Amino acid sequence: MSFKPISDIGEFGLIDRIAAIAAPTLDAAPGLIEGIGDDCAVYELSKSVLQLATTDLLLEHVHFDLLTTPLHHLGSKAISVNVSDICAMNAKPRYALVSIALPSKASIEFVETVYRGMSETARLYNTALAGGDTSASSAGVAISVMVAGEVEKKKISYRKGAQPGDLVCVTGSLGGAVAGLRVLMREKNIMLEHIKHGEPYDNDVMSNLSEYDEAIRRQLLPSARMDIIDFFHKQNIVPTSMIDISDGLASDLAHICKCSGVGAYIEESRIPIHSQTRHIADEFQEDAVNYALTGGEDYQLLFTLKTEQFAAIASHPDITVIGKITPEKESMLLCDIYGMNVDMKTIGGFDHFNHKK
Amino acid sequence: MSFKPISDIGEFGLIDRIAAIAAPTLDAAPGLIEGIGDDCAVYELSKSVLQLATTDLLLEHVHFDLLTTPLHHLGSKAISVNVSDICAMNAKPRYALVSIALPSKASIEFVETVYRGMSETARLYNTALAGGDTSASSAGVAISVMVAGEVEKKKISYRKGAQPGDLVCVTGSLGGAVAGLRVLMREKNIMLEHIKHGEPYDNDVMSNLSEYDEAIRRQLLPSARMDIIDFFHKQNIVPTSMIDISDGLASDLAHICKCSGVGAYIEESRIPIHSQTRHIADEFQEDAVNYALTGGEDYQLLFTLKTEQFAAIASHPDITVIGKITPEKESMLLCDIYGMNVDMKTIGGFDHFNHKK
Repeated sequence: MSFKPISDIGEFGLIDRIAAIAAPTLDAAPGLIEGIGDDCAVYELSKSVLQLATTDLLLEHVHFDLLTTPLHHLGSKAISVNVSDICAMNAKPRYALVSIALPSKASIEFVETVYRGMSETARLYNTALAGGDTSASSAGVAISVMVAGEVEKKKISYRKGAQPGDLVCVTGSLGGAVAGLRVLMREKNIMLEHIKHGEPYDNDVMSNLSEYDEAIRRQLLPSARMDIIDFFHKQNIVPTSMIDISDGLASDLAHICKCSGVGAYIEESRIPIHSQTRHIADEFQEDAVNYALTGGEDYQLLFTLKTEQFAAIASHPDITVIGKITPEKESMLLCDIYGMNVDMKTIGGFDHFNHKK
Repeated sequence: MSFKPISDIGEFGLIDRIAAIAAPTLDAAPGLIEGIGDDCAVYELSKSVLQLATTDLLLEHVHFDLLTTPLHHLGSKAISVNVSDICAMNAKPRYALVSIALPSKASIEFVETVYRGMSETARLYNTALAGGDTSASSAGVAISVMVAGEVEKKKISYRKGAQPGDLVCVTGSLGGAVAGLRVLMREKNIMLEHIKHGEPYDNDVMSNLSEYDEAIRRQLLPSARMDIIDFFHKQNIVPTSMIDISDGLASDLAHICKCSGVGAYIEESRIPIHSQTRHIADEFQEDAVNYALTGGEDYQLLFTLKTEQFAAIASHPDITVIGKITPEKESMLLCDIYGMNVDMKTIGGFDHFNHKK
């Protein structure tokens, strides 16, 4: 028997293996429309209504760092990233279950602050915190969140469904979350260096982070784009495909292309990037476009739309058309600002088992 | 600002605090019938059908020990303990979401073996593995499982609902899971001692565990009592209250009594205990009844029933009447084999933040 490390096949290879093992169970639930492979599991509640369910497991030292993450923000983000998966299917969240495991050093106030962040954010999305589980942890804090949502059957958007000619659109701007993370990690290292050398880390040496406030906010306190879903429902817009950008534009667009059996043509100059993101990338001598393509954690929506629906989104100030869907054989191309076409499949996204960012 | 350790208020005190913080979110989901405080969250799918949802977070070194737990069993148990929560409300499971976080040492085969255990067990319960999440862990393995189930509104059983005069019943036998754990931990320590002293740990020194097989099976491979739920539905039995025994009879009966506003009178001599459990308790010079009362992890069902329904369960070989519900003022009494009444509230159950077993 051979023992292969997971990095041999990567996160998505692993998910394929798991899906194959889970496949025989699917006959058990005739109402299950979509299993492993989209943002959410899709379950038929009635002839016209679907339920979506998604879950995320967040671990200290892997997904968050308590040195740079306020507890209130941690709770908020744990809810938002799951609601974002519900939004990615053009649906609205209904309720959430939360499990939390705590090291013995955690105080009651610690737990209450995390839950207050969850509760306030859940209310913003009209989502009930309906239950869960608390237990001890021998290592760091672990938080698992499940969110269930609903959508009318005729309104659901999957990763599949994009067709050649469709417009490729994104909401908001990209790359901000990783830019914020760069700043926070630099500040953390400054702090640790001071502690290491027994020097005070106080107002005199602390950086003024206010010029990075927007990027830091995007890292620590991302929003799920429920406002966009409300807009879609009001305007009767049903994207032909949709995903939320959690791994980076390149990787998440690749999911849409793979699931839909299409290619894409994206213009670099159209990718919306916040000025602060550009400043931070310059400071770190990095490329802001690369932040957008591979940074991840922006939790903006990436979707495709029939060109006939362009008028319906044209006036929205926070939606940008960045390219179009092409036949599969034309691959996924990025036309850079010099007019050169780059194959986007050579650009990685975040893989939990292959840390090549 | 004061910082109180969680052990000051215990697991159930913490859950009360969390429920208070979550309360303002409940208005958001008008279909939410039961939030934090029962085995599952209860959500109204239609006029006649309810959805139940439950989640558990299992951490290596806290909830399981890979030295004594085969991976296949680990996957199976992760599914069974959640399905058991669905059964505890007289409902049937429909689908499950699984999140798993893996240390870098974990191989593909490791993950596949855990998932095979999940998949085979999920099929036994007609439950679809519908999705989830994989990620890296910097410490041990973490597994989070969510199971959603369904029940007709008129058939649901809550923790509340027991009334004075109702029969108190349990399925199967109790205390076996902790007895199995005692044997496994002893064997683990023998193994570690041999390794520590550089001595071989092989067939010559390994204990023959076959005489403990039933208890070990109950610890490593518990079943959710779906068979009992099938029997209830077939016989049109709706328990007036129900819970699954995860913390021990004393603690779980206390939940029913507290939620229902009643007391209980239990006869020690009627508590079903497997002969192997008694042998193991004797070996460890411990009390088998105490295993049943405080051991936990048996995942049997504890329920109350109108006396008129006694005939319907009388012939079932795996259901035992152990006592009756009394008015709240009569407290929770255990009549021991010498005829003495003991207040069961002085007997603890498992509390994740106060390890007094």
